[in-house]
Amino acid sequence: MEDLQLTVSIDRIGNVVGTRRGRIDGPGLIMGSHIDTVATGGIYDGNLGVLAGLEVIETLADARRETERSVSVAFFTNEEGARFAPDMMGSGVHQGALDLDAMLAVRGIDGVTVGDQLRAIGYAGNTPCGGVRASHYLELHIEQGPVLEQRDVTIGAVEGVQGISWSEFRVQGVSNHAGTTPMGARHDAGFVATELAGFVRRLALEFGGDQVATVGALQLEPNLINVIPERATFSVDLRNTDDTLLREAESRTFARAEELAVQEGVTLERRELARFTPVAFDADMIALVESQARTLGHSVRRMPSGAGHDAQMFAPHSKVAMIFVPSRGGISHNVEEYTSPSDLEAGANVLLQAALVCAS
Amino acid sequence: MEDLQLTVSIDRIGNVVGTRRGRIDGPGLIMGSHIDTVATGGIYDGNLGVLAGLEVIETLADARRETERSVSVAFFTNEEGARFAPDMMGSGVHQGALDLDAMLAVRGIDGVTVGDQLRAIGYAGNTPCGGVRASHYLELHIEQGPVLEQRDVTIGAVEGVQGISWSEFRVQGVSNHAGTTPMGARHDAGFVATELAGFVRRLALEFGGDQVATVGALQLEPNLINVIPERATFSVDLRNTDDTLLREAESRTFARAEELAVQEGVTLERRELARFTPVAFDADMIALVESQARTLGHSVRRMPSGAGHDAQMFAPHSKVAMIFVPSRGGISHNVEEYTSPSDLEAGANVLLQAALVCAS
Repeated sequence: MEDLQLTVSIDRIGNVVGTRRGRIDGPGLIMGSHIDTVATGGIYDGNLGVLAGLEVIETLADARRETERSVSVAFFTNEEGARFAPDMMGSGVHQGALDLDAMLAVRGIDGVTVGDQLRAIGYAGNTPCGGVRASHYLELHIEQGPVLEQRDVTIGAVEGVQGISWSEFRVQGVSNHAGTTPMGARHDAGFVATELAGFVRRLALEFGGDQVATVGALQLEPNLINVIPERATFSVDLRNTDDTLLREAESRTFARAEELAVQEGVTLERRELARFTPVAFDADMIALVESQARTLGHSVRRMPSGAGHDAQMFAPHSKVAMIFVPSRGGISHNVEEYTSPSDLEAGANVLLQAALVCAS
Repeated sequence: MEDLQLTVSIDRIGNVVGTRRGRIDGPGLIMGSHIDTVATGGIYDGNLGVLAGLEVIETLADARRETERSVSVAFFTNEEGARFAPDMMGSGVHQGALDLDAMLAVRGIDGVTVGDQLRAIGYAGNTPCGGVRASHYLELHIEQGPVLEQRDVTIGAVEGVQGISWSEFRVQGVSNHAGTTPMGARHDAGFVATELAGFVRRLALEFGGDQVATVGALQLEPNLINVIPERATFSVDLRNTDDTLLREAESRTFARAEELAVQEGVTLERRELARFTPVAFDADMIALVESQARTLGHSVRRMPSGAGHDAQMFAPHSKVAMIFVPSRGGISHNVEEYTSPSDLEAGANVLLQAALVCAS
């Protein structure tokens, strides 16, 4: 950003924005994404949108091309939410959907707060959050799913983002001897966790369509072979493009959890870690991605996003588009994550052309 | 042991034996148990049998009562098996059922070997293992289950110990994005773990009788809310007094695990951590406990043991008896574990009287 002579700001939640001035003042274009990853993540998720944004600005600079509106590149804090929930934290605070102080106080899975960690890494900036409005927001991202590769399509014109519901369950039972405690006398916290995991899997299959359900994190205590678990802590991740169906999936999951707790004689607490309603992007912006992809000679397909993205935080206030490129084997959140150089280039060129339309 | 002027030996697997001489040489009586606990354990499990053994010897000493046979108190290394599998390791090596070198090389859940840890705590002794034979072996232990309390009986005359099968499963799937990966395209290692946990629970209920089944330890990797688990490591603890039924429970569990792995497109490894066939104690010794309890005016009941105990390792070579006292609420492997002082005293007195019969 400094090499490109951008004006760089770091805001109080750690978002970094680098801006190239336009001919006019006022809200401009932001090209954004994130540079955090999950522990097992690959190198494309998030980074692609940020690096391609810098590439677009470098291309404009090389061509001495001025724009009407300012053009910024941003990377937003904690999009993944793997250590600190909720996800899309930085963009949520940036757009006023999440409260700054509440987010700074969030404790991670290692017990550290967001605020302390930002100070520790030198990214607790001074720029205020929540007041920045973009005229347009563009995000290039890997698909992280199998659709584009399976259909042999290069560019996805994203129609919207599915709704996300993250819950953490804590079950408190009674630890006891695994050999001497009859099956009927158990208060096994692990049983509620493992049964609910099976339940949400079957629920997702029953709902079909876009519904997905995942138990990604599960911990038992004392976690010993010959002791009935006294405590289970686990996550349930539910997603659907249809909010009515997502709400139904939630209510059935929560009801089943309560039922299992009563049946097993254990106590159950549920905490909402994140809840985002499905987002539909602007029709003109979807059409813009489609037309620019076609003009460049790429195959293109409209599609929803299965993952949450920073883009959805901008949708209420800005004209937003997302551009997807294929993920080999549909693999993401895995070191095997891969997108070919030609697909990366295709995506960056669509981003450039769309940016020129939005900013000029 | 030193205060009581016992001859103390520490053997190569860390078992500690303190011996009071008898009038004759040759195999004597051992009163033994263990002093290790599970992480959430109480203060009675194991310790009772060792402390009561010392009390018996102190009583003999105070009364200047000599015995024909030697009388020893022993505590055996790693009865619980919570950190190092298999359980009953020290008594198993002591009686030649387990190989010394193989056990010293066992790695714990923290990666340390038994041998290194014994050296670190100063209990890698010099006394050879495997050659010591006892004429009689007596073990006083808390029941760790609800039977005695529910029937308002003070003393359990243990008829035998149920068979134990411990397996560790490692499932290798593919980590992927929890939002973008369709349900049908998943290779979720956690799914196999949680489904098998439900399966063994239902299997135990279907078998009924003494069959119990427990998934006490379960770990997912990367264990993140928005990542499909690529690895699951979990334990299955199966127990039954009938070895035919135990073998059937094992084969159905293992077959179901394989089936789930194929269905989910993941690989599965199974490792046997411990396998003990059910043990029946000597009829005369069961009758001895019964008669001594009655003579002392205590209610007594014959019963099997749901837990494994060091006593079972002595059963092939010695005359073995176990004495149970009640556990409040049937609770064990829990800090709430409790046995009343009067029940502890009753058990210790039965141990004393049985010891006098065995040793004099």
